[in-house]
Parts: sequence; C-alpha cells; structure tokens
Amino acid sequence: MAKKLSISIAVLLAAALMASPLAADGRGFGDRMPKYIFFFLGDGMSSSQIQATEAYLTTINGGSAMVAKDLLKPENRLNMSKLHITGIQTTYDAFALMTDSASSATAFAGGLKTKSGTIGMDETATNNYKNIAQLAHEAGRYTAVMTSVSLDHATPAAYYASVPNRGYMNSIATQLAESGYEFFGGGGLVCPDAACRAGDTSNDVWALLAAKGYAVLNSKADIEDLKNNPMDKVVCINEILDGSQAMPYDIDRPGENLSLAEMLEVAIANYTGQFKNRGQMRRDRGAFFMIEGGKIDWACHANDAMATIGDMLDFDDAVGVALEFYKKHPLETLIVVTGDHETGGMTIGHATTAYKAYYEKLLGQTNSYEHFEANQWADHKAFHAGSVCPNVADPDNLATSADMLSLIETHFGLKWDDFNDYQKEKLEDAYDKSLCGANNNSNDENKLLYGGYNPIIVTLTHILNEKASIGWTSYSHTGVPVPVFAHGREAWRFAGFYDNTDIAKRLAEAIGQMLPALK
Amino acid sequence: MAKKLSISIAVLLAAALMASPLAADGRGFGDRMPKYIFFFLGDGMSSSQIQATEAYLTTINGGSAMVAKDLLKPENRLNMSKLHITGIQTTYDAFALMTDSASSATAFAGGLKTKSGTIGMDETATNNYKNIAQLAHEAGRYTAVMTSVSLDHATPAAYYASVPNRGYMNSIATQLAESGYEFFGGGGLVCPDAACRAGDTSNDVWALLAAKGYAVLNSKADIEDLKNNPMDKVVCINEILDGSQAMPYDIDRPGENLSLAEMLEVAIANYTGQFKNRGQMRRDRGAFFMIEGGKIDWACHANDAMATIGDMLDFDDAVGVALEFYKKHPLETLIVVTGDHETGGMTIGHATTAYKAYYEKLLGQTNSYEHFEANQWADHKAFHAGSVCPNVADPDNLATSADMLSLIETHFGLKWDDFNDYQKEKLEDAYDKSLCGANNNSNDENKLLYGGYNPIIVTLTHILNEKASIGWTSYSHTGVPVPVFAHGREAWRFAGFYDNTDIAKRLAEAIGQMLPALK
Repeated sequence: MAKKLSISIAVLLAAALMASPLAADGRGFGDRMPKYIFFFLGDGMSSSQIQATEAYLTTINGGSAMVAKDLLKPENRLNMSKLHITGIQTTYDAFALMTDSASSATAFAGGLKTKSGTIGMDETATNNYKNIAQLAHEAGRYTAVMTSVSLDHATPAAYYASVPNRGYMNSIATQLAESGYEFFGGGGLVCPDAACRAGDTSNDVWALLAAKGYAVLNSKADIEDLKNNPMDKVVCINEILDGSQAMPYDIDRPGENLSLAEMLEVAIANYTGQFKNRGQMRRDRGAFFMIEGGKIDWACHANDAMATIGDMLDFDDAVGVALEFYKKHPLETLIVVTGDHETGGMTIGHATTAYKAYYEKLLGQTNSYEHFEANQWADHKAFHAGSVCPNVADPDNLATSADMLSLIETHFGLKWDDFNDYQKEKLEDAYDKSLCGANNNSNDENKLLYGGYNPIIVTLTHILNEKASIGWTSYSHTGVPVPVFAHGREAWRFAGFYDNTDIAKRLAEAIGQMLPALK
Repeated sequence: MAKKLSISIAVLLAAALMASPLAADGRGFGDRMPKYIFFFLGDGMSSSQIQATEAYLTTINGGSAMVAKDLLKPENRLNMSKLHITGIQTTYDAFALMTDSASSATAFAGGLKTKSGTIGMDETATNNYKNIAQLAHEAGRYTAVMTSVSLDHATPAAYYASVPNRGYMNSIATQLAESGYEFFGGGGLVCPDAACRAGDTSNDVWALLAAKGYAVLNSKADIEDLKNNPMDKVVCINEILDGSQAMPYDIDRPGENLSLAEMLEVAIANYTGQFKNRGQMRRDRGAFFMIEGGKIDWACHANDAMATIGDMLDFDDAVGVALEFYKKHPLETLIVVTGDHETGGMTIGHATTAYKAYYEKLLGQTNSYEHFEANQWADHKAFHAGSVCPNVADPDNLATSADMLSLIETHFGLKWDDFNDYQKEKLEDAYDKSLCGANNNSNDENKLLYGGYNPIIVTLTHILNEKASIGWTSYSHTGVPVPVFAHGREAWRFAGFYDNTDIAKRLAEAIGQMLPALK
C-alpha cells in the first residue's frame, strides 16, 4: 500500500510539473519543452524501405526473412521501429500528389505548402518563411544540419534558406554561410563560387564562410578532432564525394569518410564539448539537430535495393546515436524520424516470387549501381570501344560475352543459367543499349525499362531485387503516406494521421513557438 | 475562475472513474471498458489502397488529385483517415514475410502466429485457440460477423472457427452454426452440404443452422425488416452472389443486394432493437461487430484499381456507420480499422507518369474486370469462337478488331490512338492469348504479365491504372507494414508500431481479458 501511495504522489507531482508555465524570459526551458531535438529525415523513405531493410537485417543476422520469430527479434528491427510513438503523414505539395524534396522540406521545416522546386517560400515564390531550425537558432540553441548529400541540396537547405528555385545553389550556400548555425556536416557544396544557373547569385562562399567565422574541415582526422577540440562554427565536408558533391553510397563508403552516424556523433560531441571545455562560459540553451539520409532517395530513383538498404542502415545508425543520447537525457530529449515521400514505388513482393522472399540473394551485390557503373562497367565499355559494336539484332551478345557474365556473377551474384528466358531477353536488350546505344525495343519500352539509368545495370538491379521479392514501379517519387516515429519529451504530439506541414507546426509547438511564420 | 475550477473537478472525477475496478461479477462493464466494439478489416488494404481511394474521391468530388488543398478537404478523406489514433503493424505469419489471410486473421482475432492456411490453431495445427469474438460472446455480448466474401472465408472464419486448413469450409460453416453468435451477414457458404475437400466434414449446415435456432434470410426486404423486427440469431445472405459465394464487387453491385455498410446498419438495428422491442427483457451486455471488406483483396490480386476503390468506398462507408453510432455513444464505443496485409504491390506512382497523376482517367472504367469478363468478354469470345483463331504472329489482330476496340473504349474509356507503341504491343499479345490461348511471349513473360488472370483484361487494367499513375508489382500479398486506425474508448491502446498479434491482445485487454488463450 505504501508503494502504491508513493507512486500516486509521483504521478500527481509529474502532472503538476507538466502544467507549470514556460519560463517567461525565454532563456530557460519550460518544463514541458524538450531541450534537445533530433529531427531525422529519410529522403525517399516509407514503409517499404523500412521493411526491406529489416528483412535484410534478419538475413545477415543469420535468420530467415520468412520466419516471423526471426523478423521480430529486436536485433533485426531498426532503431526507428522501436520508438514509442507512431504517426502517418500525407506528403502532397501544393500542386502535386507526388511532392518533390524542396516542397516537402518546406512543409516539414516551415509548416507551409509550396510548389515543387521551391524552398522556404510559399507557392507564389515571393514570401520568405521561417523554419524550425531558424526558430531554434534564434532561441539560442546549438543548431546543426547534416546530410549525406551536398549541404546545399533541397532538404537541408529548407532548414536555413529561402529560394524560389532549388537550383539556385550558390544562393543557398550563401544563406548557409549567413545562417550562424554552429554545425554543418556531410557532403559539399555544388556551386560555391559561381552561379548554378541564370537567376542565381555568384558569391565566393568559401570566402564568405571564413568571413563569418566558419572553419571548413575536409579530413576525417580534423573532423573527429572536434570531439576533443570543439569549434564555435564549423562546416565538415567528407573527403571523398561523388560528382554531385554527395557522400558515396554507404555500401561503397571509403575509409577516408565519416558515416552519417559518425558525423552526428561529432556534431553532438562538438556541442557538449563547448560547455565542458569552457566551464559554462557560453550559456547552454539546448540543441536542434537535423539529419538527412539523402541518398536513400537516389538509390530508390535508380531502383537499387542494396544501395537503398545500405544508406537506410547508416541513417538508422544515426537514429541509434540519438537514442544513446536520449538514454542519458530521457526527460529532455525529443527524437522524430520520418521520410519526405516514398521513391521508386518500392514493394515488398513481386509477381515472380509471389508469397516467398529470398533476401539472401541480395548478398551477392557488392557495391551500388553507381560504383559498378563508374568502375567495372566503365572498364568493360572502354575495352570494347575499339571493336565493332555488336549487331543489336543478335539475341546472344551478352550470352557470348564471357567477361561481362563474369562481372555480373562477381558483382551481383547472378549466374547466366539462373535467369529465365524473359530475363535473358531483357538483359540482352539492355546490354546492347548500354554498349551501343540501341536495341530492338520501342522508345516507349526503353523509357519504361530503364528510366534514364544505365540499361544493363538497372536491368540487373531489377532482376536481382525481383529474385529477392522486391518490386519497383517508378523512377520518381510516389504519393503514398509516410510513417512518422517519435520518442521522448513531447513525442505524443506526433501520434495520429496528419499532413506533412503539421510536423513543423508540432515541432514548433513543442518548443513554444508557432509556424508557419513570415521572415 | 469558477469555470476553470469546475473543469478541474470534472477532470478529477473522470480520472477517478477511470481508475475504478471492473465489476467483479463480470456482468456489468468496468468503467474503462468499451461496451461497443467495431473491428474493421480491409483485406489486402494498406496505405496505397487508402491513398488511391482518397485521390479518386478528390477527383469525383470535382477537385484535382494534383492539388494539396483539394486532397486535404475533409470530404475527400476516408472516414478511417479521420480516426484519432494511428498505429502500424507488421503482418508476417509464422513462416512467411507475406502472410495469407488465414494466418493473419488468426493473429488479429486470436493473438497468435500460425502458418499460412491455418485458422484459430497454432503452427502445429493441433491446438485450438480462442478468438476475441468468442470472448465477447462468452461475456454475453451481441456478436456479429460480416463480410463481403463468403461467410466461411478465412478472415471471418477466424472469429468463430478453428481448422487446420482454410479449405475445410464445411467444417468452418458447421462451427459458424454452432457459434451461437447473433448475426452473420454478407456473402453465402461455399460448402454448406458436402465436404469441400478430403479431410473436411460433410454436414448439412442449413439443417444445422435451423436446429440451432438461426433464421437464414436471402432477400433485401427480409434482411432490412430486421430493423423493425429483430431476431435472436440470424444469417443474412445477399441475394446475388458470385461463383465464390461472395458479394459482387461494389462497382457492380446489383439493386437486389445490401452493401457492406447497409448490412452493418441492419446488424446494429437488429442489436438495439432487441432491447427496445422487448423492454430490456434480455440483458444488454454490449456488442462486438467484426466487419471485413474482403474483396478489396481480390480486386488487388487482379490488379484492378477501380474495383479496389469501389470496395474500399463501401468498406469505408461501413466505418462511417460505426462513427455515427460512436457519436451517439462516444464514451462507450471503440472503433478499430486495419488491413491484414497489402495485396498486389500497389503503388501511388508509375514510371510512365513520373510526378503527375491523372485519376480522372479511372472514371472511364464502368465495371470490374470480373464483370467485364463474365459479360462483354464472354460475348465477344463466343462470337469469335466459330471463326478461325487469328494468327498470333500478326501484330494487328486487335488493331483491326473494331468491335473489341469499341468495347475497350466503352468499358475502360481507352481509345486505340491513346496507347503508345509498347502498350499496343502488349495489348496485341494479350488479345491473342485471351482469344486463342497463345501469343509470341515466352511462358515466363506470360506469367509475369498476366499472373493467371484473363490476359487482355489484366493488360487493360494495368495500362489504365498506369495512365492514372497507379503501379502494381504482384498478383499476391506483399509484406509491407499496415496502418491501424482507432477511435473512442481505449483507442490509445492501438498507438505505436507493433505486431498483428498485438491487435487481438490489445482488444482483449480493452475488455479485461487475455489472448492468446487455449480453447
């Protein structure tokens, strides 16, 4: 009885605490206000991407993706699946059932609908709006933005910039330098010293960053040193980037780079270190971390499940880093994880496999489509460039190419004899198209089968994925509602079925602010 | 101040009421226990089916599926989307990432994992388990089971039967007759007077139903008369059924039939009337309604979006009927809506439409694939049966068939000139296969393209759906997690990310019981 009574008193005390007003001077934290906020955005991530990754995890952990007891083991579930609160959001933008990443980021960063391509502005592209990171920064919070793509890409940009066109990447980078945020990390800048297109600014952003007090770090050692020697304002750019200034796919990650999860560890340590090392000389007003898994989307555009899963795992590892932080500060931390839209029309089943799944087949793929194209395929094509291009009417060009068949077996785990007649026909067509620029298909068929990607490679990932039981229907974003996961202080706000604009609004409410708000 | 105080007192009183113990004799209702439970199961329904239906609703209500303001209007949202609580469930069965409807129904009716094909028994198929409807019935609740497919189909069966094989439909029907439940409604019985297969019983179920005190009603007038003259135990079978004893697709609904929503209205009126007409002579211990939208799944197996949407709308209208009931009994009613798995790998986007959606194109389809096959196609094929079968090497068999092109335009809204080269090629192949049983494709390609459905019809629904921006990847169930919607008393239990077995467990907890439980 005594125990019960004490619990009741504790409950009453907690209720009394929750009802107390926010600190009036805005310097402290209201009792209901999360001091630490982690917002995770998986670009192109919806339920299928999550399920495929968990089925893959189950397989590499020695279980079977066909056994519920294995699939449901905690070690085979993603961190995001373990968060306590779930919600579902609709992702449409002002004029599209299938949003793009600029308008969706404007929705969940600023709480307003806009048209595709626009960032931090309404659909007239004339009014600038504030976003949740800006509110956090203005309130004196340590503000950090991380992404696996370039720092000036649409999704991270919505947390510090307003532009009528996502292509104005010099203007976006200029606003990054002027943001005053404490930390940026991940990929690089696409147009740091010239206009990206007509209408864009043409500033020297590197000079501006220096003028604004930012250190720009490019090596893993320098970036990791922030754990011991924090800096006030820093931009951390991984050493090895792809042609779009994005980090390579996690499945291809070079040793010189930090993963997204490692970058978040640095961002957290750089934050906590600022106070530890300086004896609270700087006042700690909490933190806002925005972390984007940006290449989940790119892998899904290319219909490459293994590249998708690799970047899903790195993204979810970053969620794990936040969960570790939460365990140390459970009453002060809010974690929210969601996607901006689904990409690729990915499904957890295929006509050719029906009720069976074979995720172990995915293990045969060693690198992303992108890595294969830049390396093995480039070499193969260069080697054949001097010879006469095969006759595209010959149905055996690939079947008789021992070196290409060997590459397919080594890099995708697929043997020629494992393909059925229909798959062989598709592979032959695709090989001719990739090698010679032509095949027997109509243009409509080529468009449907390859969607602008390298024909032989996208055909290989299609067939490999189908063999595992993963289907794709599109090379673009799709309009299916996306799950939201939340945990910790004020996480209850993210329960229910709502619109993507409500995410920014609810985050703002959680810190006693209002969105949308004009700049 | 006085107003604030009275509110505080009301809150305290409510809190005190919620903490009070359940009635010890089991006859009354604990204060926290929902008296009325509605459990809705959309077979084959996941996020894509919901989104496609809302985009369609937006279109027929005069809006555009490409405008967020239109899509978000309340009248364009399904009733289920408006329920306050959302959850997400994993749907795997004991030995499959893609569950079947028997094992999934056993999960959310009885709270245990079993193998595909098994109902109300564990994976050894030797132990019988109780389900949530049985618990409700044993507690004296009015118990009603409704479905748009046959009453002995896997999903409804899991609410009253235990069989090692879902094909034992005579045994299932026998257990229906022995259940003692007050109301069954929807489709008919597949094997009412003979064994369905080896191992099944061979009882005369009609005689057994009569012996157990059931009235069997077959006409709309007789069924609707229950609203005025309720019966203690009744089986309501719609007059017009398809070859599987299921109700026709809602898009084809004959005037002689009740919709699923209308059947639920009757089931509710039959319940409330029992007490109204008899002056409480029978003690009212609450009610449990199970309502399955069973042909959403069948339409998705066949990759027919319009048939899917029609049955989604009827199913959601039934949710609307429950919401009306909830409004009259808000403190006593719990509504839960979910799906057992996704079917078809349906996606809200397609490679050929990219970021655009054209739901207005769907309006050209007048009936389901099934109705077209049984009527227009059957006539067309019969007319051509006497003539020599076209040469399957001729690429213009369909292009030169004026009557078939006319049928396609009238019943699918598609003109020959609107098809691109690739679509024309696919339609020609499919037409030959449907008319003559052969075409130029390999067997593997035929399997992938038609999945056992009528080639020309499934090719037409594929192309029509793709033109609207809906893709499909499978003719089977898929393994994507499925949303859960809940509303009213104890609805909070259905928040979060959990397993399908947790649905039965949480429903049981909501009424002070435990599942799984051996029979």
